[in-house]
Amino acid sequence: MSTVQVLLDERSYPIRIEAGSLHKLGTELVQGAAGSRVIVLASAREAATCLEPLVAGLESVQTPWQSVEVPGGERMPSVRSLVRLYDGLLEVQADRETLVVGLGGTSVCHLATFAASTWRRGLPLVLVPTSLLAQVDASVGGRACLQHRGESDAVGMRYAPRLVWIDPSLLAALPPRELQPGLIEIVKLALIWDAELFGWLESHAAAVRRSEAATLVEAITRACQIKAELIGGDRNAALRTLLTFGRPPAAGPGPAAEPRAPLPQGLLETAAVSEQLGVAPAGCADRLATLLLALGLPAPTPDTDARAAHLCDLAVDKRERDEKLELVVLRDVGRAERLEITPDQIFQAFS
Amino acid sequence: MSTVQVLLDERSYPIRIEAGSLHKLGTELVQGAAGSRVIVLASAREAATCLEPLVAGLESVQTPWQSVEVPGGERMPSVRSLVRLYDGLLEVQADRETLVVGLGGTSVCHLATFAASTWRRGLPLVLVPTSLLAQVDASVGGRACLQHRGESDAVGMRYAPRLVWIDPSLLAALPPRELQPGLIEIVKLALIWDAELFGWLESHAAAVRRSEAATLVEAITRACQIKAELIGGDRNAALRTLLTFGRPPAAGPGPAAEPRAPLPQGLLETAAVSEQLGVAPAGCADRLATLLLALGLPAPTPDTDARAAHLCDLAVDKRERDEKLELVVLRDVGRAERLEITPDQIFQAFS
Repeated sequence: MSTVQVLLDERSYPIRIEAGSLHKLGTELVQGAAGSRVIVLASAREAATCLEPLVAGLESVQTPWQSVEVPGGERMPSVRSLVRLYDGLLEVQADRETLVVGLGGTSVCHLATFAASTWRRGLPLVLVPTSLLAQVDASVGGRACLQHRGESDAVGMRYAPRLVWIDPSLLAALPPRELQPGLIEIVKLALIWDAELFGWLESHAAAVRRSEAATLVEAITRACQIKAELIGGDRNAALRTLLTFGRPPAAGPGPAAEPRAPLPQGLLETAAVSEQLGVAPAGCADRLATLLLALGLPAPTPDTDARAAHLCDLAVDKRERDEKLELVVLRDVGRAERLEITPDQIFQAFS
Repeated sequence: MSTVQVLLDERSYPIRIEAGSLHKLGTELVQGAAGSRVIVLASAREAATCLEPLVAGLESVQTPWQSVEVPGGERMPSVRSLVRLYDGLLEVQADRETLVVGLGGTSVCHLATFAASTWRRGLPLVLVPTSLLAQVDASVGGRACLQHRGESDAVGMRYAPRLVWIDPSLLAALPPRELQPGLIEIVKLALIWDAELFGWLESHAAAVRRSEAATLVEAITRACQIKAELIGGDRNAALRTLLTFGRPPAAGPGPAAEPRAPLPQGLLETAAVSEQLGVAPAGCADRLATLLLALGLPAPTPDTDARAAHLCDLAVDKRERDEKLELVVLRDVGRAERLEITPDQIFQAFS
């Protein structure tokens, strides 16, 4: 079993990663003495596919449990779903002796985090992410972001779980297509921060495509390590910004928006623009495209013109206000950086 | 202007107290550079009675403002009201450049705290409590507790405001009866922690009854100081428990419930029982009753028999489990303490 330690504010928690391990979580929880009963928050789909090994483990150590259905079928978790989750917690009378287990994808992880953080002034929380994206993204950082009436990221907070438990075997039941967002996130993390992982992905692409258990464990572990390094500890805002790599730069001031799952298009365009700006050596974008294809991911031709036009628009704005642009660019495979650049440098690069 | 500093987790914030000061808050906010516009969250009643001086101050320093109505008429703030408040924040497009001002009683303070803490991952918050109880209770500690479907304290969190602004002149518009919960809270704080304030209340009871501005400022300041001392800094749980003084002791284990406004009945019964247990000198309960009456508050004869019967019931339970009782008792006027006591000592005292 591999472990990644996440530092969040003053609290630290472990991510444990092992294929076929979900039935052992019950024993782990008893040893951690975290509450006298367990409430599992899961969507209907996860309840049908993943609940059994979890419950077998809980029953083997005589831990009483109940489940509460998390409203599913939403692209983004919502305040409306949160209120229904509160209804469920009220129904099972979740009290301060209760441990909450969030079992599901990104949406379930965010809802479980928000609910556990606020119910009865905070219940201990364990996350069991069941999608590859949730395993490498929602598992690190304790974020809970909810939409409200269609407005994304309207409501949110941070709350550290006690433990994140990742069983990559749960991914075997999913159609391969559902692994794509998680794979893209892993590629992004390697591209911006870990040349060695990037090389490892290149040489293990076939095994990753076959979802071989040991390969997935390795990829997930290293992705979680990178993300924990970028967001954890002293919360270095500059490092955290690197996670926005691939998104079009924001027009306004203020903090960068939190990263969503990146699209290959955005990664490729940013790599290509970095080459054109002369900050990355030629060939980075090509090497990225090759890896994406090897992993069975879409690798569209980067629309560098569109991205350059967007940058020039921003530069016109900035020149009027006598300001520089702040971009997240690629220096090389495995190394993204924040770059301050003048509007004139933009115009020179793309004229 | 008097100031009380509150330490909450790693953050500290000031409570500023001055009669007739609400029109100055705008200037203070501009100097604090806290956001480029202000959203005032207020119930319809506070909007009608207290908004004018606040808005005059904001407009005098060219700070744009909008108001959002907080659903009122509830005894306790609810998750349902929170969602309606989110609707309002969405409508005025509150973003991270926005400062939230919560203007109202306890319910508004709790809702504003929860909303500001979670909206757009946290907006700066200033509380302007307009009831005496909110001024000496919700102003200290950054608590937000909401009920859900009638279940009190179902959902909650802590979030430090930047500033709490108390203008006791706002109380002049209220019927004297509405000051009672706040006065009872002040008496409780003096009784459990500050013999000097208790004596001061005895000698200034007439001025307090007349709501004289300077007297209210003094009483509110000292009450906030006591509460900040009991809950602040290293979050000494033992000290915090003293705030539950007057409530019947809990049957189960676990942390004591958060204090609501105490009723004179509970204070008097606990004082009388403390005398019967021999931990407080005779006469404490009488002195308390005299002060309550002098302040125009109800001072019912303590039903010591009922409280003793409740304690004996608990003692029977505890003896079966071979445990002690934990009580919050009075040692003397101005000094409450946690007391561990055996079931047999209870039986001896009340047989």
